[in-house]
Amino acid sequence: MTILIKNAWLDGEAKDVFIDGKHIRQVGQELTMAADRTIDARGKAIIPGFVNGHSHAPMTLFRGFGDDMPLMKWLQERIWPHEAKLTRTDIYWGTKLACLEMIKSGTTAFVDMYFNMRGIADAVEEMGLRVLLGDTDIDHFNPELAEKSKERTKRVFRMVNEEYGGRIQMSVAPHAIYTVSGELLQWLNDFSREHALPMQIHLAETEGEVADSVKNFGYTPVRYLYKLGVLSPRLIIAHGLYVDDDEIRMLADHGVKVVHNPASNMKLASGGRFMFKEMKEAGITVALGTDGSASSNNLDMVEVMKLASLLGKAWRKDPVALTAGEMFEAATVAGASLMGLKAGRIAEGYLADLSLVDLHSPVFTPNFNFVSNLVYAANGSCIDTVICNGKILMENRVVPGEDEILEKAAERAYDLVKRNA
Amino acid sequence: MTILIKNAWLDGEAKDVFIDGKHIRQVGQELTMAADRTIDARGKAIIPGFVNGHSHAPMTLFRGFGDDMPLMKWLQERIWPHEAKLTRTDIYWGTKLACLEMIKSGTTAFVDMYFNMRGIADAVEEMGLRVLLGDTDIDHFNPELAEKSKERTKRVFRMVNEEYGGRIQMSVAPHAIYTVSGELLQWLNDFSREHALPMQIHLAETEGEVADSVKNFGYTPVRYLYKLGVLSPRLIIAHGLYVDDDEIRMLADHGVKVVHNPASNMKLASGGRFMFKEMKEAGITVALGTDGSASSNNLDMVEVMKLASLLGKAWRKDPVALTAGEMFEAATVAGASLMGLKAGRIAEGYLADLSLVDLHSPVFTPNFNFVSNLVYAANGSCIDTVICNGKILMENRVVPGEDEILEKAAERAYDLVKRNA
Repeated sequence: MTILIKNAWLDGEAKDVFIDGKHIRQVGQELTMAADRTIDARGKAIIPGFVNGHSHAPMTLFRGFGDDMPLMKWLQERIWPHEAKLTRTDIYWGTKLACLEMIKSGTTAFVDMYFNMRGIADAVEEMGLRVLLGDTDIDHFNPELAEKSKERTKRVFRMVNEEYGGRIQMSVAPHAIYTVSGELLQWLNDFSREHALPMQIHLAETEGEVADSVKNFGYTPVRYLYKLGVLSPRLIIAHGLYVDDDEIRMLADHGVKVVHNPASNMKLASGGRFMFKEMKEAGITVALGTDGSASSNNLDMVEVMKLASLLGKAWRKDPVALTAGEMFEAATVAGASLMGLKAGRIAEGYLADLSLVDLHSPVFTPNFNFVSNLVYAANGSCIDTVICNGKILMENRVVPGEDEILEKAAERAYDLVKRNA
Repeated sequence: MTILIKNAWLDGEAKDVFIDGKHIRQVGQELTMAADRTIDARGKAIIPGFVNGHSHAPMTLFRGFGDDMPLMKWLQERIWPHEAKLTRTDIYWGTKLACLEMIKSGTTAFVDMYFNMRGIADAVEEMGLRVLLGDTDIDHFNPELAEKSKERTKRVFRMVNEEYGGRIQMSVAPHAIYTVSGELLQWLNDFSREHALPMQIHLAETEGEVADSVKNFGYTPVRYLYKLGVLSPRLIIAHGLYVDDDEIRMLADHGVKVVHNPASNMKLASGGRFMFKEMKEAGITVALGTDGSASSNNLDMVEVMKLASLLGKAWRKDPVALTAGEMFEAATVAGASLMGLKAGRIAEGYLADLSLVDLHSPVFTPNFNFVSNLVYAANGSCIDTVICNGKILMENRVVPGEDEILEKAAERAYDLVKRNA
């Protein structure tokens, strides 16, 4: 399949982009090759697909189910009891809803951490996105549960490799240092090294976590991981709010990547002082994410870019910090590098994961600076067309099957919260 | 003109709303009266129109023209030289663009502060919104300029009363305590008392302003206004970031209203610790605003609600603070009370300023809590239909004349920045 996109706004001029199979083959002007599909993109900008660096996709089912509540009350009364009753069908429809929402806001790939990988993988496979799956490991410091976790990890790894692959990739996913023993963390790290898998973990998300880490392990979270020997270029840290200068150095030295989730951090009041600038200066790859829809409420990476910039400017008291251009890079090419993808740029040889943005709207008028308008003025609804892996997933804001997804996902969500009664 | 809206989602059930002329006449179920227009609102929620409590509407022309710059450099190099060249036609098209953007995101009324009132009033009159105009007063402590300001204020007041009125209302608008002499502030306050006009001012926006106020006047900003005798129920303060407990008490005692502009405060790094909770507890009416598009980049009140809540939760380290419901009230009924309007509720006898929200989308799926979805998951693009003063301004996201507005406003903006060369 070849696609020729004509006259899309790119770097200040109208450009043509030729897609051949899964890749961008040529970017230029007045391209005239024959193509299976030609898209007239006048009045539209072309951008790389966003990469959501941290999500719990099926949690769309819990959207709006317990906002403005204290964290523990929310988890204990709303989330955990109902998560325990989730079936594979729930997970499947929740993920379909997440994928629909991501496509409609220009996201083409995401890093996910949840459970029931088949439900997620099947949904993503059908929806046409890319995912880095993470089947959450939790042993609560119980060796028996640790053994079960290891067996499950091996099983899921085989399953993903044998039955999925391609757009569906696997990572190991220890939940956090307060739910996973050091022994299991090390085993998962060994497994990830052996099979060249990324490893994701929630880390340094709250002040309480840091205090407990010091109390229980004798070290702050990053130092604890260092002592365990699990810092590596395979490691992706979600949150990383509470890190000192030396820890930033340690993360940089080991090639660890970090995902900032401003909406979740602010809404759950985890904290607001993310060290974006310091991490970037140390050479760390910093991406952006939404976190699950139960805490950030949506999966809109355009909103995340604005939030990350505004939050960074505010606490630093520096209107020049965290520029629109830096946010755009974090949401695209940095995210792609988390997932080991040659994506996140509109350039020859890159994966054909991209979107067209409709410029015919108030927020892109005037259009002095496209990236600034995208980051600071727009929201995900500006996305008009989405292509992933060379395949059109949305055109003129229409995603095939949308009605059924909305209906089925809502049905599962309403049933789920009744099931517990 | 009568409009019957059938089966709109309101407070958890399907309701009918009957509009007769400018007002909501009846809210109930299975209403059957004859109406000039009947709107089928199944799958849509009905909400009051948002009130944008602080804006500089024509500054849409400067959208994206100098982001991520230090404040003074931005003002001196980008804003002021070009503002000086704005013509009435520029102002008119910039305001049309602002109105278009506001309608498309569900705002039906706004408090504005700029200059060239005819350009603004004509645009708002045509677009069908309500505005509280403010013709910015600045005398730079120069008595001659103060006299000119007074004459202009009298002239504009006459003009608005004689030629506009209705949806177009007038306020007095001293820019700030660092640009307006105490003498002019008192004169404007007297004028506003005499003619029962609201008075708006930027106040306590930055730490620098507070330090200068103490240095130059011997008092912090709110205390300075108190000493001048200009605190009153007519006064609307934009920003009010830097106020202590006693100042909150003073504002409450005098019935002063405050508008919080989180996007602008964060982006310009003015500060993040807005005392929403303390002000509300003291009994102050607190509304929300965007500020001008040159600093907040858009006029989306749905985004403002989320930002205000998230920012408040983050700095307070309290996930329960600033709830979705409080934000919704601040963006609707509190804003209406700034403007002296009986609006901001879907109830009998209230002005027919309202919107329909399309619930058929991922961010409203599932719909456990409509207000939570609206505030935390949605953005302005969820607005489907807008009615102001009993007149339909947008239906199915179509605003008559949109293309011309986008074209003309962009034309004026591009011409404007060339004019200075």
